[in-house]
Amino acid sequence: VKQPGAKKQFERAVIVGVGLLGGSIGMALRERKLAKMVVGVSRKQSNLAAAIERGAIDMSSPSLEEACQGADLAIICTPVQTVAAHVVRCAQQMPNGGLITDVGSTKQNIVEAVAQTSAIAAFVGSHPLAGSEKSGVEYAKEDLLENRLVVVTPGLEPARLNQGQLDLAVRAESLWHALGARTMRMSPSEHDHAVARTSHLPHLLASALAGATPETVLPLAASGWCDTTRVASGGAELWRQIFEDNRTPIVSALEEFSAILQQWLDALRNGDSNRLTELLIEGKQKRDSLGN
Amino acid sequence: VKQPGAKKQFERAVIVGVGLLGGSIGMALRERKLAKMVVGVSRKQSNLAAAIERGAIDMSSPSLEEACQGADLAIICTPVQTVAAHVVRCAQQMPNGGLITDVGSTKQNIVEAVAQTSAIAAFVGSHPLAGSEKSGVEYAKEDLLENRLVVVTPGLEPARLNQGQLDLAVRAESLWHALGARTMRMSPSEHDHAVARTSHLPHLLASALAGATPETVLPLAASGWCDTTRVASGGAELWRQIFEDNRTPIVSALEEFSAILQQWLDALRNGDSNRLTELLIEGKQKRDSLGN
Repeated sequence: VKQPGAKKQFERAVIVGVGLLGGSIGMALRERKLAKMVVGVSRKQSNLAAAIERGAIDMSSPSLEEACQGADLAIICTPVQTVAAHVVRCAQQMPNGGLITDVGSTKQNIVEAVAQTSAIAAFVGSHPLAGSEKSGVEYAKEDLLENRLVVVTPGLEPARLNQGQLDLAVRAESLWHALGARTMRMSPSEHDHAVARTSHLPHLLASALAGATPETVLPLAASGWCDTTRVASGGAELWRQIFEDNRTPIVSALEEFSAILQQWLDALRNGDSNRLTELLIEGKQKRDSLGN
Repeated sequence: VKQPGAKKQFERAVIVGVGLLGGSIGMALRERKLAKMVVGVSRKQSNLAAAIERGAIDMSSPSLEEACQGADLAIICTPVQTVAAHVVRCAQQMPNGGLITDVGSTKQNIVEAVAQTSAIAAFVGSHPLAGSEKSGVEYAKEDLLENRLVVVTPGLEPARLNQGQLDLAVRAESLWHALGARTMRMSPSEHDHAVARTSHLPHLLASALAGATPETVLPLAASGWCDTTRVASGGAELWRQIFEDNRTPIVSALEEFSAILQQWLDALRNGDSNRLTELLIEGKQKRDSLGN
């Protein structure tokens, strides 16, 4: 899906962390000719070799500092607890109005940590809702972001954004649009509370359900079980960091959900057909409103 | 996938309830030339017309009694709470050694109810694990059962099966094999406890999660939420009957699951990284053991 006539927006784009998402972004930047050079950074040499092989980056560097020399774009695609530190290191090498963003599944802690440094002048948080239970650059694809939603979270308090923060948000949004995605603007805190319900609680339930299923009955697990637990295959370390990072909103979401489970339990114990029907219809209507 | 040289096993096969599963079985019986005539029975004339249109049945009948005249096979594909009554009515028209089975998602109550009648001489319970959140004969397909597992549940007490029950089980298994499926034999009670964990609890959680998600955050629901809640689109009436019918095993499964959720809540509240990692790895390993 090349954009005919689109000019290269970036001289040098750096991707820190070349997994599924970082690799896919690199492929899209290259295929759509949005950057003259895409440089990948990773601690793992094997990741970098695979990323070059896959066409996700033009060149690799074991040194983030070296990679960021002359860069005007850096996208941090590492697990959430390391994002802020990478932003700060990139910013130190990109003093001249470069754009730094990330793909972390949580935003409040990342933006808060960056906001305590001068790196905030170059950084705006992003979260592309394009994850997968699969990880690794071998699953990367150029169109992973196509029509997906990216939440962009400028500043910490939406009511008090300065012009610099608004400019960064517009630049990040135009980047995501060029990569084929849609965008939505939210505050970091609003984002974290929303994804606690749409992503983190579902992951927790999928993982708890998979873990709770006795080995002896697994042969009877069919498509329903497989769909409901699919995301539990996601990387445990990645998700531990997300759970810790977004602990408070997730605890609230889980407490609310437990109260709803209690309603199901009561309806079952009391043989309350009407209540069971109500609960089932409520779930069906909400699910049907979203399509496949 | 026609079986060259396979002879027609049945003179007249009756399918009561021509939805996704009944329609798919009809298509497979016809395509594989396993029955000389496939007759569909449904209260809804529109279902029958659609089933003929789709090639799922040769002819239709509004009367179960009429359809069963001269039949040597009847498969009951109606919601679980009506299965036993349909079995009994079919059996009254099929006195000469015909085979009657069903596709209900629960088995204990059905087999128990039939066992109180003479229809038990012709009936063995079956449960093909080939459901879908989609319903209706328009989604039926000839290969729906291909490589799927069908649980066959002869008698009520596995230790005390008589020769007649064993013969019926063998005949039902050979039918399912001819339709492309694999089979596994279990007692009705063992089956119900197993599917409470592999199918009914996942459905309950998917439905509760979908229902619990606030409208305002639905725009952020991505593939994780969609996978985890997919089965909640299943028919509410169908599932109410399953939940009521298999109430006791489902209540146990839900109580156990709630206790496990409490462990997650404790780990989150206490910021217990090691415990969170353990829980995530447990879920991942169980999920990964099953593939896609």
